[in-house]
Amino acid sequence: MNPIDCMQRAIELAQLGLYSTSPNPRVGCVIVNQGRIVGEGWHVRAGHAHAEVHALRQAGAAAAGATAYVTLEPCCHFGSTPPCADALINAGVKQVVIAMVDPNPQVAGQGVRRLRAAGISVAFGLLEQQARQLNRGFIKRMVTGLPLVRVKMGISLDGRTAMHSGESQWITGPVARAETQRLRAQSSAVITGADTALRDQARLTVRKAELQLEESQACLAMERPPLRVLIDSQRRVPHDAAFFSAGPALVATTSISLTDPGEGQELLMFDAVDGQVPLEALLKTLASRGANEVLIEAGSRLVAAFARLNLVDEYIFHIAAKFLGSTAKPALDWPIDHLGDAVKLEFTSVKPLGDDLCVIARPVGAA
Amino acid sequence: MNPIDCMQRAIELAQLGLYSTSPNPRVGCVIVNQGRIVGEGWHVRAGHAHAEVHALRQAGAAAAGATAYVTLEPCCHFGSTPPCADALINAGVKQVVIAMVDPNPQVAGQGVRRLRAAGISVAFGLLEQQARQLNRGFIKRMVTGLPLVRVKMGISLDGRTAMHSGESQWITGPVARAETQRLRAQSSAVITGADTALRDQARLTVRKAELQLEESQACLAMERPPLRVLIDSQRRVPHDAAFFSAGPALVATTSISLTDPGEGQELLMFDAVDGQVPLEALLKTLASRGANEVLIEAGSRLVAAFARLNLVDEYIFHIAAKFLGSTAKPALDWPIDHLGDAVKLEFTSVKPLGDDLCVIARPVGAA
Repeated sequence: MNPIDCMQRAIELAQLGLYSTSPNPRVGCVIVNQGRIVGEGWHVRAGHAHAEVHALRQAGAAAAGATAYVTLEPCCHFGSTPPCADALINAGVKQVVIAMVDPNPQVAGQGVRRLRAAGISVAFGLLEQQARQLNRGFIKRMVTGLPLVRVKMGISLDGRTAMHSGESQWITGPVARAETQRLRAQSSAVITGADTALRDQARLTVRKAELQLEESQACLAMERPPLRVLIDSQRRVPHDAAFFSAGPALVATTSISLTDPGEGQELLMFDAVDGQVPLEALLKTLASRGANEVLIEAGSRLVAAFARLNLVDEYIFHIAAKFLGSTAKPALDWPIDHLGDAVKLEFTSVKPLGDDLCVIARPVGAA
Repeated sequence: MNPIDCMQRAIELAQLGLYSTSPNPRVGCVIVNQGRIVGEGWHVRAGHAHAEVHALRQAGAAAAGATAYVTLEPCCHFGSTPPCADALINAGVKQVVIAMVDPNPQVAGQGVRRLRAAGISVAFGLLEQQARQLNRGFIKRMVTGLPLVRVKMGISLDGRTAMHSGESQWITGPVARAETQRLRAQSSAVITGADTALRDQARLTVRKAELQLEESQACLAMERPPLRVLIDSQRRVPHDAAFFSAGPALVATTSISLTDPGEGQELLMFDAVDGQVPLEALLKTLASRGANEVLIEAGSRLVAAFARLNLVDEYIFHIAAKFLGSTAKPALDWPIDHLGDAVKLEFTSVKPLGDDLCVIARPVGAA
């Protein structure tokens, strides 16, 4: 196997942790000796062994003199597990090929230095773009202290999310709903607003059967559900709302009139800005708790509030082949007067989702 | 060559008439003798030789005993050219394979009967769907007396066509504009409304350089430009408007207050329905003049008027990666109250157009 195929395999392995490694990054490792793979591993979840350790265990004595392909620079500090750089050194690995260095500027390169100091040859940059793609949220959090923020909306072809009355259930079909479930499952946190919680009885839960994932992936996803976050500046959503009945939740609020959290609720109080929860501060708090990827599923007002603060990295539109008409609610409640002030995006992906379309766009210049 | 490849080639030849055969259908013909193509032809423009005649001329004596593949049933009547069925018979062709029969129910099958009466073996239905796709407009006109109606709109990802002020130029990019030029060129008629003619100085012309077609195709397109139609119920557009300066035009109107047509203008008067030009009657008139495919490029009010009457067969949206915001003009000015009344469409095509997307949707059950 050539080096590109080996790293490609390591990336495939890392991908298996899509739904379970948060707050850690997704990492894969392949150990190759005399052109043959002798060990494979991937990081399953925080607190458990890293990818390199799994691969070394499988390789056993065959790790001596081998080349290790790792999607992310091996760690060199004691966290909840011992440093992987040491494990590679102790196993007698001869060469390490790394797709990308540690995104944390404070520790970047330390693993590489430790390996080199032990006489191991180290190369990096192989399939770096693909490796970065796997961990865009983790990288953004390490570099900026903010999570990667995705907005997911179901809209009609004429750009509407709900009827004027608020009626909005089932605009898109079952394939789009399963995709939404997987988006939730890969996120560290999902956010909605009081309007959506009240009007749509939104719960934002991950439901195993609806994920339509292979059993082992579905199980991993269910063991690490995303943190459900409700933005409710005025505490308008009652304790018996569907959102709260569905399980533990974080409530971001500004109101002190009703300080009593309901069962399973954690209150996060912010100083109001214009009467509202300050959104960037909320995202920073979520990042400080380890949220790499945050998914916003909310109405046109809250989505527009995030968008206007340039806090959105990616818009995921599930577009239904329907017209909801000109009195229906807009995708984003954002008045713009001049064409020159239009929000500039770029399309990054288009694919069919059953009878619907999935169109992904990023603000020009986003993470 | 097997029969499928032969008919595929005939369809490719027919396609060469995309911009020039109107009001006639696009037709291609391939003549095969002993497994070898000995003649090819396609219909270039109305009044000129049909596809079969071109192919027979090329084949010469080699047509005797050959098989002819034709995308449309050969004609059996004297129009502006002699019947093609007779030409095939006289050339001594042994077998004729036809993709689709004549769509006109009054003449369907007559060509086949004439060929069979002369002892020629006739088969039909090979690649019929592809052949029908070439001439959807012609077929619809023959069967229903109405043209195929396409709406083309440039919209933002949030479903808006223009700012509240009317500002709308250049929402989409140059690749989308070239595609729009080709859509105009393949149409028999292009329609706009007074609002668009007044506000955007729309001309709806085909401009050779902007077609971005191979030279011979571009020349053919320029020799048969689409009829430019302005719907102006109240005769609001002045004679010196850009639309009229750009060349001859048909004005569909109801007003008798200003009966004087400007230079190069033809007036088409209708009895007003709710003060407006009756749109189905206009389309019937255009069909009776030979319009197979009609392209509507208009504002949200006129587009919605056609849509609400179920007169639109296909929506072609060029979607720009932009948000124009919630105060901008809707794609269709069509108030709908209940989700159950939403207009149901189906996506038939999605492709990138430079930085924009082209999404084509048809009303469920359209032609």
